[in-house]
Amino acid sequence: MNIKDWGEEAFIDYLKAQFFKMSSQSNSIVGIGDDCAVMPGHEGRSLLITTDALVEGIHFIKKQISPEDLGYKSIAVNVSDIAAMGGQPEHAFLSLALPKQTDRDWITNFLQGIKKACSQWDVSLLGGDTVGSKRDIFLSITLTGSASPNCIKYRHQAQKGDIICVTDYLGDSGAGLKALQEGIEKSTSVQYLIQRHFYPRPSPEEGMWLASQEGVHAMMDLSDGLYCDLQRLTTSSQCGALIEMTRLPLSQELALTASSYHWDAFRLALEGGEDYCLLVTISPHVYKSIQQKFLEKFNHPIYPIGEILPFSSSIIYHQQGKKVDISLEVFNHFQ
Amino acid sequence: MNIKDWGEEAFIDYLKAQFFKMSSQSNSIVGIGDDCAVMPGHEGRSLLITTDALVEGIHFIKKQISPEDLGYKSIAVNVSDIAAMGGQPEHAFLSLALPKQTDRDWITNFLQGIKKACSQWDVSLLGGDTVGSKRDIFLSITLTGSASPNCIKYRHQAQKGDIICVTDYLGDSGAGLKALQEGIEKSTSVQYLIQRHFYPRPSPEEGMWLASQEGVHAMMDLSDGLYCDLQRLTTSSQCGALIEMTRLPLSQELALTASSYHWDAFRLALEGGEDYCLLVTISPHVYKSIQQKFLEKFNHPIYPIGEILPFSSSIIYHQQGKKVDISLEVFNHFQ
Repeated sequence: MNIKDWGEEAFIDYLKAQFFKMSSQSNSIVGIGDDCAVMPGHEGRSLLITTDALVEGIHFIKKQISPEDLGYKSIAVNVSDIAAMGGQPEHAFLSLALPKQTDRDWITNFLQGIKKACSQWDVSLLGGDTVGSKRDIFLSITLTGSASPNCIKYRHQAQKGDIICVTDYLGDSGAGLKALQEGIEKSTSVQYLIQRHFYPRPSPEEGMWLASQEGVHAMMDLSDGLYCDLQRLTTSSQCGALIEMTRLPLSQELALTASSYHWDAFRLALEGGEDYCLLVTISPHVYKSIQQKFLEKFNHPIYPIGEILPFSSSIIYHQQGKKVDISLEVFNHFQ
Repeated sequence: MNIKDWGEEAFIDYLKAQFFKMSSQSNSIVGIGDDCAVMPGHEGRSLLITTDALVEGIHFIKKQISPEDLGYKSIAVNVSDIAAMGGQPEHAFLSLALPKQTDRDWITNFLQGIKKACSQWDVSLLGGDTVGSKRDIFLSITLTGSASPNCIKYRHQAQKGDIICVTDYLGDSGAGLKALQEGIEKSTSVQYLIQRHFYPRPSPEEGMWLASQEGVHAMMDLSDGLYCDLQRLTTSSQCGALIEMTRLPLSQELALTASSYHWDAFRLALEGGEDYCLLVTISPHVYKSIQQKFLEKFNHPIYPIGEILPFSSSIIYHQQGKKVDISLEVFNHFQ
């Protein structure tokens, strides 16, 4: 059996089973399974660590993305993981494998992208490893962050009745990728979608603020699409969910482009991937107040998209109150 | 210009220049240029972080190394970096890119190798990222460690007159690789050398002990061969060095194999790479006492191989008191 057939989820379950003892040796250490690992840190804070890899031909096509955008994105996707736990990003480590014929300008532009992202989120690049590669470019960023131990949010903390929210439009990045793959005409809307694919906008400030609010329960970032990531959250929290499809927030640009090209915008919102916004569950008792304060603080709303159902329920999708059958393929990194 | 011609050292200098401000924003943070980055950690300790990448076709040939050995080695080479700063290894993060046709057994055996190494050095695997790859396997380990802030050793601390020592035989791993490349007969000696190539034996206990001794000045691990790594140490410390070639410690197995196949054992000891033992400089005033205590504690000697020369000297190689001209090519990851 090869890893494609084994599947990513089965592989991660195997990893957890093999290494669970190691990561649970201390109550204060949380390992495999959340957006970041959590350890005791400096001056009573918790240390968060996350790692994300990007591979040429899988996550990016060298001809399609500028090296600066790639560098920027490689930091941004990791910032998103720190944001998802309610942390402040701090130090980055870059592991980079380059074919020997890689052009120096490509590399310096790539590093400028890294630098731009580091400046934006006040991250210091402190080290890494640069090695040769036979054919493809590989890059892996490890990012540390810190958080107040009492405020860290996990995937397993959703509670029955919680309002499920997201902090940004869904599907824009997936639509941008689709536009690139299909080579469609670059209207203003399409340019916006492609920009959203290349320039994730993770939100550590929003993550930290939400994590500090009482009644905010579970939190994670959306990287593989709502359909897939919500399954991860409900599995961790041992609960179900009801999603009202018409509430999925869509940008005007996505709606316009989907309409022009007969794309299914809701499908893109569910399985597009690389949204890099937050998926958060909030107690219904404080939801109104948090929604209001969030809007005042960040000048854009959080979007309620559904509700957490009790244990043993599955994930149900409604469209204007009626159950609809959604059977999408779960994202598999080895497909 | 491509990265091969630009060269690894020039690339790292560029990185340092670009990101120096970031890493020197605080006196307590040390960034790019040593074996690990150093940050403030938990309970008054320093946090060490290091990253090492291994790429198929560059660092290993899939057919030549068993997946278990590869997993073990990927942890071991990072433990060596933590050892080099005098730290205790703690938590590992695995970034792994696999072609979709990779066999499940290969992966589970690879993870068993990781687990074996983690158990040996009391490391917990706490997370990472597993993704697809188009063609080659890419893996990158980030390892954290902790150290007493007063005991951490750097490359730039060598002092004029220091005795230069190494903690293990040199060249075994390089000879093992050569044996594999040349496909020579696997005598007992050759098997030992190949084993040394696949199973690095980093020494965090020795590193911690040496780091705690007064009079131990600079320390680093040998990963790219003494010839190359000593240049890094002397450049950092702004000093020169005198190496007595006949003092380079060679294993019996290397001596035997080199003699059988007319290999230059000293050349392998200088440029072989992947020794993963410690290069350390010790004040001549305490050297005898440290040498004695080290032997008692670890049941094998440290090997004195030369002396630190004052600022503005170069690195001089002697053979039985006479200067010899060594002009090896410095290891370049992009060659």
